[in-house]
Amino acid sequence: MKIYRVNMTNLTFSAEEVPERWKLLGGRGLTSSIISEEVDPTCNPLGSKNKLVFAPGLFAGTKAANSGRLSVGAKSPLTGGIKESNSGGTAAQRLAKLGVKALIIEGMPKDDKWYTIHVHKDGVNIKEETELMGRGNYEVVQTITSRYGENTGIMTIGQAGEYKMSMANISVKDPKGHLRSAGRGGLGAVMGSKRIKFISLDDNDGDGIDIKDKKKFDEAAKIFNKGLLRHPVSGEALPKYGTDVLVNILNEAGGLPTKNYRMGRFEGAEKICGETMYDNIVARNGDTTHGCHVGCVIRCSQTYNDKDGSYITSGFEYETIWGFGAGCMVDDLDIIAHIDHQCDDIGIDTIDTAGTMMVAMEAGLLNWGDGEGILNLIKNEIKNGTPLGRILGNGPDFTGKAYGVSRVPTVKGQTMPAYDSRAVKGIGVTYATTPMGADHTAGYSVTANILKVGGSLDPLKKEGQTELSRDLQIATAAIDSTGLCLFVSFAVLDFDEVFAALLDMINAQYGTQWTKEDWNEYGMNVLRIEKDFNRRAGFTSNDDRLPEFVSEPIPPHNAVWDITGEELDRVLMF
Amino acid sequence: MKIYRVNMTNLTFSAEEVPERWKLLGGRGLTSSIISEEVDPTCNPLGSKNKLVFAPGLFAGTKAANSGRLSVGAKSPLTGGIKESNSGGTAAQRLAKLGVKALIIEGMPKDDKWYTIHVHKDGVNIKEETELMGRGNYEVVQTITSRYGENTGIMTIGQAGEYKMSMANISVKDPKGHLRSAGRGGLGAVMGSKRIKFISLDDNDGDGIDIKDKKKFDEAAKIFNKGLLRHPVSGEALPKYGTDVLVNILNEAGGLPTKNYRMGRFEGAEKICGETMYDNIVARNGDTTHGCHVGCVIRCSQTYNDKDGSYITSGFEYETIWGFGAGCMVDDLDIIAHIDHQCDDIGIDTIDTAGTMMVAMEAGLLNWGDGEGILNLIKNEIKNGTPLGRILGNGPDFTGKAYGVSRVPTVKGQTMPAYDSRAVKGIGVTYATTPMGADHTAGYSVTANILKVGGSLDPLKKEGQTELSRDLQIATAAIDSTGLCLFVSFAVLDFDEVFAALLDMINAQYGTQWTKEDWNEYGMNVLRIEKDFNRRAGFTSNDDRLPEFVSEPIPPHNAVWDITGEELDRVLMF
Repeated sequence: MKIYRVNMTNLTFSAEEVPERWKLLGGRGLTSSIISEEVDPTCNPLGSKNKLVFAPGLFAGTKAANSGRLSVGAKSPLTGGIKESNSGGTAAQRLAKLGVKALIIEGMPKDDKWYTIHVHKDGVNIKEETELMGRGNYEVVQTITSRYGENTGIMTIGQAGEYKMSMANISVKDPKGHLRSAGRGGLGAVMGSKRIKFISLDDNDGDGIDIKDKKKFDEAAKIFNKGLLRHPVSGEALPKYGTDVLVNILNEAGGLPTKNYRMGRFEGAEKICGETMYDNIVARNGDTTHGCHVGCVIRCSQTYNDKDGSYITSGFEYETIWGFGAGCMVDDLDIIAHIDHQCDDIGIDTIDTAGTMMVAMEAGLLNWGDGEGILNLIKNEIKNGTPLGRILGNGPDFTGKAYGVSRVPTVKGQTMPAYDSRAVKGIGVTYATTPMGADHTAGYSVTANILKVGGSLDPLKKEGQTELSRDLQIATAAIDSTGLCLFVSFAVLDFDEVFAALLDMINAQYGTQWTKEDWNEYGMNVLRIEKDFNRRAGFTSNDDRLPEFVSEPIPPHNAVWDITGEELDRVLMF
Repeated sequence: MKIYRVNMTNLTFSAEEVPERWKLLGGRGLTSSIISEEVDPTCNPLGSKNKLVFAPGLFAGTKAANSGRLSVGAKSPLTGGIKESNSGGTAAQRLAKLGVKALIIEGMPKDDKWYTIHVHKDGVNIKEETELMGRGNYEVVQTITSRYGENTGIMTIGQAGEYKMSMANISVKDPKGHLRSAGRGGLGAVMGSKRIKFISLDDNDGDGIDIKDKKKFDEAAKIFNKGLLRHPVSGEALPKYGTDVLVNILNEAGGLPTKNYRMGRFEGAEKICGETMYDNIVARNGDTTHGCHVGCVIRCSQTYNDKDGSYITSGFEYETIWGFGAGCMVDDLDIIAHIDHQCDDIGIDTIDTAGTMMVAMEAGLLNWGDGEGILNLIKNEIKNGTPLGRILGNGPDFTGKAYGVSRVPTVKGQTMPAYDSRAVKGIGVTYATTPMGADHTAGYSVTANILKVGGSLDPLKKEGQTELSRDLQIATAAIDSTGLCLFVSFAVLDFDEVFAALLDMINAQYGTQWTKEDWNEYGMNVLRIEKDFNRRAGFTSNDDRLPEFVSEPIPPHNAVWDITGEELDRVLMF
């Protein structure tokens, strides 16, 4: 495999051998290593010194189930620290088939033109783009598909990325031609700063990947795949209800953050829960279950139609529904679906957009529960880059500062997602300490706290939470490097043979002899690299803290945040 | 003397004895000590945990010339660090006469009402305010003067402070009823967050201050006053041309930052220089020289009228004229005067507003040189708190982020003033290292670099610059604690007997035996307190750096910034 390097200052391309030290890296491990080695941590994230790295995971292109996640890395304009954001869609597997271990984009055009990058078996073409400038992601995907054919992979930015808004995401075409997103941390703004509207991938005649011991790999992959289907979360709940199955679970647990984290239960939960979504999809001839990439066996995605049976959105996730729903007090699933569509099309992260709307409601820009108002701000302000849109598009901290609002639900500038840190303490530890800024996926302590997966821990008590978050953050850093979907973790945590199969697959593919200890060391090393980058970027332990309002009790349990700064400082000290 | 403490949460007032450790502190030394002791460095600057402290200097209320400066301190919403901003006007001397060593405002109202604070010989009254909400500073001063009489001192915020914009200043009524400002760092936003529109001061029947050895004090004060008048800068140049005398001097030196720091000379300099200002004032029956507070013998202020002889502005400073002039390429002194008037009235810092307009020009919001465009943005957007006004009102970094502009001329979020750091290297050291964010007054190395005061140092060479800046930062921290105007420094630096008289005045007033070493230790201690606060707030050496563009050569000398990070890190290491 090769490292593909595109320099946007000179508009040049080069293919490089993979250095020895990067050979066993993939996904997040590779993007974070490249950013750490090649990017000045003090640089302006939207200046020419930042780099944008796309990397498929270690298993990309293999038969391993759920191994098609794509990692994207850069210094984040939202958090100011290192960022890895991963996404489904078809890009990772196409990059792997093309033999591209990482695509590094550096520099910045000297002129004001916009460009596109086309990756194919012979390398990369850089072309000027005019037709699609100012257009949304849905239109980009449709136009490129007709330009280059159905089988083209696409990574694109919407208007938000063109405006370099720090909530801008990078969208990736999925197998149905819909959109998946590398959502968090404003990586779309970094792509916009390099003036690239989209990257297209043609994997025809690609060399594909290499597996040292194919037979052993296939055997392990079979056990792995079976394990995912045998677990009640990945085999039953997620395929049927999608991630939105969590609305009722978190509401019951009193950990569904409502009205910008004032309460842990939402009166309108029933109207936005996974069961309601399922009923709507069935009644409206949608699709209750499909995968975001080829080879996904969990298939937690869906297609959500309106009452007339017309497509509104897909990949309609719990965190999106929570954010605009309970977070903003909107109890109408259809309007939230339209909001999700707009966010995907404009290319903004739904969690941070929801956090921003909560702040806008605090500021009195719109009323709690006003779903139409949210849709209007997104469609008319953010999409058009009006001054108000520029405020909102730069996220909750920015909006809070513009309007003098101090109740802002972020860590490192990134919105805390759909699980309250006082009622689900393990996830609060992750929000505070992950180098990524508040991110549930970085160490999903909801497992043992709420789902009773990988053990059981009282979510309201602090005991054991820092250890739980640490272990999960380490495992996640490794998982994110394989290109496996995080949802394989349920089976990996609960079934010994699934974890063994995971190690077997690595060893079979790469000819290694990894043990559980090597796996842990791998994850720890990724975190060390990321922590070190942030330290060099100027982060201190002050940045590893939750917002001031977590000292307020949250009903119904009236839990408060009681994990001390000293305890947080020790979480990733290894 | 007493410490006056106003709690805005409970709307209560208390008078406290001055603790022993604060007795020899005044001005900046006292505000920084109180903020450091009482404010959580990690707090939201616009939340209830921040405090706003007003303190007259050690000499306030005495006969010492130029001793009427007022220090205002808080955690800054602009820089995120500790802030002392000082101002002329009549407030410091009135506070001293009332026996108030410091006025501490803490907490935040629980309701949405706005308040005023009236300080008089028997304490403090807190009243609700409705009439003046939404009004500019000029109208506030006029109305309060007619409410409470000509002799009332006033500290007030304009619309920007009400909006909690991070460029908002606190305006102080001067002897002519015009406005002086504690300009930098957004302290007006802190006052706004506590929902105080203005503070009025009635010093009738105040107890006044105590001087241990009045005769010795008077003798020293006489020598001190004479020295100020004998120095060519404070005795001749400043009284005649005001601070704007510096336009021609810096332009000649190639250190007048032009077009957002692209060049060191401005073609239109002649049209905005002090000599032109002087001619206009004389021709239009303005006032070429007056003091910003009673007892000022330098009198660098002036009243600038329009062609019809009507008042436009006063306290029309070099940094203001540089910023909107050379910085934004506007070569029309009258339009800059109108901009200055608007900034004073709305209550925004002129240096940061100029920096913001440079960024707005980079973003294409208006053209270089468009003075009317600047005036329009201030009058119609910032003043009205429109979304665009909210962006601009939060300063250059904020505006840069909103529009994806990376050429932003700030350190710690605060605009670098009117002296280029490549062509006047000593001032660059101060911009980078002062705990205040880029601030020329924190260590005015222009003295030896350009004015040949206190020695002479080649401004284009790095040799000696870190030592120069260090010495001046130490001396300034001490001067700022006395309530003396910084412009006494020219005579203090050049004339031994003036510095001796300064020490004599302290010793006579407070019964101390201070030597030069004690004076230095005093200044160093203030800086230590401030550095420590910033460290606890999360600042690292990364924050003590100039923006990336200082690596570009600046014509005419094509100087680049060549002082290393390691050298900067040592400046305030004591």
